[in-house]
Amino acid sequence: MNKKITIAIDAMGGDNSPEKTIAGVNYFIKKNSSKDYLLNLFGDEKKIILELEKYKLSKDFIKITHTNSIISDEETPLTAIKNSKGTSMWNCINSQIEGDADISLSAGNTGVLLVISRMILKMMDDVSRPALAGLWPNQNGMNVVLDLGANIECNEDNLVDFAELGSALYKSLFPEDKPLVSLLNIGSEEIKGTETLKKTYKKLKYLSSDNNFIFKGYIEGNKLMHGNSNIIVTDGFTGNVALKTAEGTAKFITDNLKKSLTSNLLTKFSLIFSYFSLKKFKDKLDPRKYNGAIFLGLNGPVVKSHGGIDAMGFYYSIDLCYKIVKGDLMSQIKKNLNHLKSGQDKL
Amino acid sequence: MNKKITIAIDAMGGDNSPEKTIAGVNYFIKKNSSKDYLLNLFGDEKKIILELEKYKLSKDFIKITHTNSIISDEETPLTAIKNSKGTSMWNCINSQIEGDADISLSAGNTGVLLVISRMILKMMDDVSRPALAGLWPNQNGMNVVLDLGANIECNEDNLVDFAELGSALYKSLFPEDKPLVSLLNIGSEEIKGTETLKKTYKKLKYLSSDNNFIFKGYIEGNKLMHGNSNIIVTDGFTGNVALKTAEGTAKFITDNLKKSLTSNLLTKFSLIFSYFSLKKFKDKLDPRKYNGAIFLGLNGPVVKSHGGIDAMGFYYSIDLCYKIVKGDLMSQIKKNLNHLKSGQDKL
Repeated sequence: MNKKITIAIDAMGGDNSPEKTIAGVNYFIKKNSSKDYLLNLFGDEKKIILELEKYKLSKDFIKITHTNSIISDEETPLTAIKNSKGTSMWNCINSQIEGDADISLSAGNTGVLLVISRMILKMMDDVSRPALAGLWPNQNGMNVVLDLGANIECNEDNLVDFAELGSALYKSLFPEDKPLVSLLNIGSEEIKGTETLKKTYKKLKYLSSDNNFIFKGYIEGNKLMHGNSNIIVTDGFTGNVALKTAEGTAKFITDNLKKSLTSNLLTKFSLIFSYFSLKKFKDKLDPRKYNGAIFLGLNGPVVKSHGGIDAMGFYYSIDLCYKIVKGDLMSQIKKNLNHLKSGQDKL
Repeated sequence: MNKKITIAIDAMGGDNSPEKTIAGVNYFIKKNSSKDYLLNLFGDEKKIILELEKYKLSKDFIKITHTNSIISDEETPLTAIKNSKGTSMWNCINSQIEGDADISLSAGNTGVLLVISRMILKMMDDVSRPALAGLWPNQNGMNVVLDLGANIECNEDNLVDFAELGSALYKSLFPEDKPLVSLLNIGSEEIKGTETLKKTYKKLKYLSSDNNFIFKGYIEGNKLMHGNSNIIVTDGFTGNVALKTAEGTAKFITDNLKKSLTSNLLTKFSLIFSYFSLKKFKDKLDPRKYNGAIFLGLNGPVVKSHGGIDAMGFYYSIDLCYKIVKGDLMSQIKKNLNHLKSGQDKL
């Protein structure tokens, strides 16, 4: 690739920004040894420069694009369309159209980001609805889960699109692995679930192939982390509840574990011996590693970082952007949609 | 109460039964110091007696009701109605009508149990649909979550019924605490979610009162375990996915933690110092303690134990039955339904 991977970053979105976002940029530049990228930072130039001065970073990897305004916290998806032009978020996404950005990243308001992204980038032909995809660990690696809330009610065509979009994302991130698609349901037998799920099951079974994805059938909530599938397809309501419930459960358990292991002098003493093992355990479950939801189905990829995440979490979402472009997500999606189209003609 | 609490137990349901179920009966009789109950065991008399002989149990607390047949593993909800009369499961439930049982317990096939229970016990007047409720820990105690899969699609009247049924169950189990109802959704703002949820929100807000339940609004998946609510209302599809996802996440984390803490001699050594704290942590999360889903809305309560649970898990489901009758669930439900009826007239 001759052209540099260009990541447009809304430096002003999320809590404690631009302090947090620039600290994340610093981690990325220090950790990434390849020199094939450019980070284009959108926001208040003065504030960004002030933050950048804290770190000794090569100027080769950074560009600053000044914007006068930012999306206010009070903005809703309904009012945003009118009020968001010229903000750091708007210009960050718009640089995929009018600039040379390959991907956009923001930690700002999710609803506003979805609406603006869709308005600027437009939906791809052949996609019925865009979806929000997230990452979640499993026993063997990582799951892509979608939709996470962009579409609270879905029909079978939406869900089939999500399977193709999700496996394209998976292939761009993990080119060595096979995309294994499962459909989230309340039982594993073919007759279980809603009519929409039964119709989706039939279509996915028909479309299942080595090249695009292998359909593994229904999956229940308790098996999401077994690692027998790596793309979990569901409607946005169920996906949002499932992922947040998993997050909440993980936090509940690790908080209680922490309390147990620091409850008295003896248990604190024991930590000396198990420190490294527990650190490895904690690292594996670190939610910052899964920071970044990917908006799929538009004519350009957009990544949403958690607003409340810290600088290290923001670093992981920049890294996710880098990997998505490196893995050529947009070509993978086009390939999958062509496959779907030719498959559907025969359905 | 002069009459003994009578619990009808399907001794033949689930894996390794009646060995497992009778071992559970043994735990219950040894642990329960009150003498106000009778366990009526349904199944193969010879096999049950053989298992009972392993323990020295007072005959005051046990009755055996012989049945010739059991529900076969191949039975489905569709075929069960024809083939299940006279089985241990059927007679166990039927003893609430023709015998003097206050509650029935089985670890057999869920779908079959739901169909048979509904057929024998019939739905209560004023209940639109029966629901399956489960228990799940939170930071302050326990959540009642419903529906868990009896109804995969629900309207606002079903969900309002679930709120009244769930808070009746909560009051029978935890008479000291206030029932705090939340509606599971993908955001906490009033405008979020499906039309059904928005209508339910309005009705629950209207019905909210100190006596029956206090409505706390919407709750997101990541806050289920915070303990600010204790009754979580949702449709059966979402509830099933949420609870199973929580189970799967908990298992994933505790399995990985176990691996970390036994990975080498040093970490194993550290366990000596943290043993009791970790045991307390493990006890709190022990899934056997939450064994038992409660079928609500019929003219009699039915508890379903996990089929694969061990004897200690089965003990907890017997104990749950005991507490439900002791807390007079059926009166609580009737009280709540009257409240709902008079409230709805004004709605």
